[in-house]
Amino acid sequence: MNKIFFHDQLIRFSHCDPAGIVYFPRFFDLAHATMEDWFSTGLSQPLPDLIRERRIGTPTVSVQCEFAKPLRMGDILRFELSVSKLGNASVQLAYSGKKQGVEHLRILQTIAFMALESGTATSIPDDLRPRIEDYLAAQ
Amino acid sequence: MNKIFFHDQLIRFSHCDPAGIVYFPRFFDLAHATMEDWFSTGLSQPLPDLIRERRIGTPTVSVQCEFAKPLRMGDILRFELSVSKLGNASVQLAYSGKKQGVEHLRILQTIAFMALESGTATSIPDDLRPRIEDYLAAQ
Amino acid sequence: MNKIFFHDQLIRFSHCDPAGIVYFPRFFDLAHATMEDWFSTGLSQPLPDLIRERRIGTPTVSVQCEFAKPLRMGDILRFELSVSKLGNASVQLAYSGKKQGVEHLRILQTIAFMALESGTATSIPDDLRPRIEDYLAAQ
Amino acid sequence: MNKIFFHDQLIRFSHCDPAGIVYFPRFFDLAHATMEDWFSTGLSQPLPDLIRERRIGTPTVSVQCEFAKPLRMGDILRFELSVSKLGNASVQLAYSGKKQGVEHLRILQTIAFMALESGTATSIPDDLRPRIEDYLAAQ
Repeated sequence: MNKIFFHDQLIRFSHCDPAGIVYFPRFFDLAHATMEDWFSTGLSQPLPDLIRERRIGTPTVSVQCEFAKPLRMGDILRFELSVSKLGNASVQLAYSGKKQGVEHLRILQTIAFMALESGTATSIPDDLRPRIEDYLAAQ
Repeated sequence: MNKIFFHDQLIRFSHCDPAGIVYFPRFFDLAHATMEDWFSTGLSQPLPDLIRERRIGTPTVSVQCEFAKPLRMGDILRFELSVSKLGNASVQLAYSGKKQGVEHLRILQTIAFMALESGTATSIPDDLRPRIEDYLAAQ
Repeated sequence: MNKIFFHDQLIRFSHCDPAGIVYFPRFFDLAHATMEDWFSTGLSQPLPDLIRERRIGTPTVSVQCEFAKPLRMGDILRFELSVSKLGNASVQLAYSGKKQGVEHLRILQTIAFMALESGTATSIPDDLRPRIEDYLAAQ
Repeated sequence: MNKIFFHDQLIRFSHCDPAGIVYFPRFFDLAHATMEDWFSTGLSQPLPDLIRERRIGTPTVSVQCEFAKPLRMGDILRFELSVSKLGNASVQLAYSGKKQGVEHLRILQTIAFMALESGTATSIPDDLRPRIEDYLAAQ
């Protein structure tokens, strides 16, 4: 269905460095917040419940990021999140980070589904897979 | 014995805010690092082992802090840590944060010993109490 | 007028420690976010503008906190913010941190108004003072 | 000269998430600390001086990371840092993150040299370039 999850976050004082721009590791924190809200709102599967009730974690396996333009305190960062690849036990998420419609950064993040008891990969649960597929971008 | 635990940390880029000084919540992170190294080196009881093997946590119950002078990227923050109060299941830690011998901040932090399984307070273990007492400041 | 500023924040994965509860320094970050939104929404004076246009910062001079009950991933933390003291160049903020109506933590934070060029205290601007007074709690 | 900069850091309580492993955005903070110490010790050009005295910043332009194995509280993370590409105004840094000799993660980070007043790219200073070249890995 090529759905996109839109998520706005205010760039706060605490995100910024002595140069007055966002310190880049904070962008991964902001992206993680977007992913958490996507699980809750987009997939109707809050991550705390996935972890605590279903005992499935979603560790990040790899991440790539390009920072094209800086962001400053007071800016609104909009992440547009979609799924760029869908595997048996992994999902690649694509984030386009925009300010007023202009892209400032791009992130590709691969997460794995992991059974917390065994610490090994586990297939994406059957009830979740179709909801994730809705966000799969057309190739 | 009035022992004091000395702990030096470099103020890094990531600790500082757009005004170029340490963003105050980071001081609690820096104090926590001092406490962790005090447990390891000063008390010979690394905190990860206390948590994982003895199943005892040390949550912070209260904290007070006065920030007299700012610190900047590149400064060396020396915390001088001592014990200001010692209870049955709690310890009040006093941190004097200095730069080149001049105090820039003071923190008082009360931690409780908590049995992780029950979530309730537990007496300070007998083997640890005398080592903690060594750091008790003369009143 | 005894106004109170209400501010809700979701406790996220990144706020929590290996014990599954909020790592206490993060509460000061959460309180700072509440203060930022109070400036923007409650006082109609966004902090980034105060800093960049009016060249006034609001460093924290002292802070006290009592942590009565823990918070966990997925909880909603509501801060109720009011002004407990109002000086010439400083404001003491009182935060009551609640989950579903029950207080889990209390913070008292004193901020100073500082002229960024000189690095010295400056009186609270005349246009801001009455708006801050609106939040002054009855004694 | 194929020099490698070695840098050890203790994985602390505050780096770890509710699953007990390092929350991945913290690895970029740990890598940044390694880079800062490389500038100070490896290149004899502390970053705070580069920023404040020479008015040159080193923003991160892109980053790639693969997380092969987790790290836990109490582990020692050794980053082995070398230079994988050297441009006119940019440097690509390669970090191999090891625990007891076994690689747990790899990071590639491209930083740009930027004149802080103009906000535009600037050539790597002549005095720094040969010191950076010493760390250029054989291809």
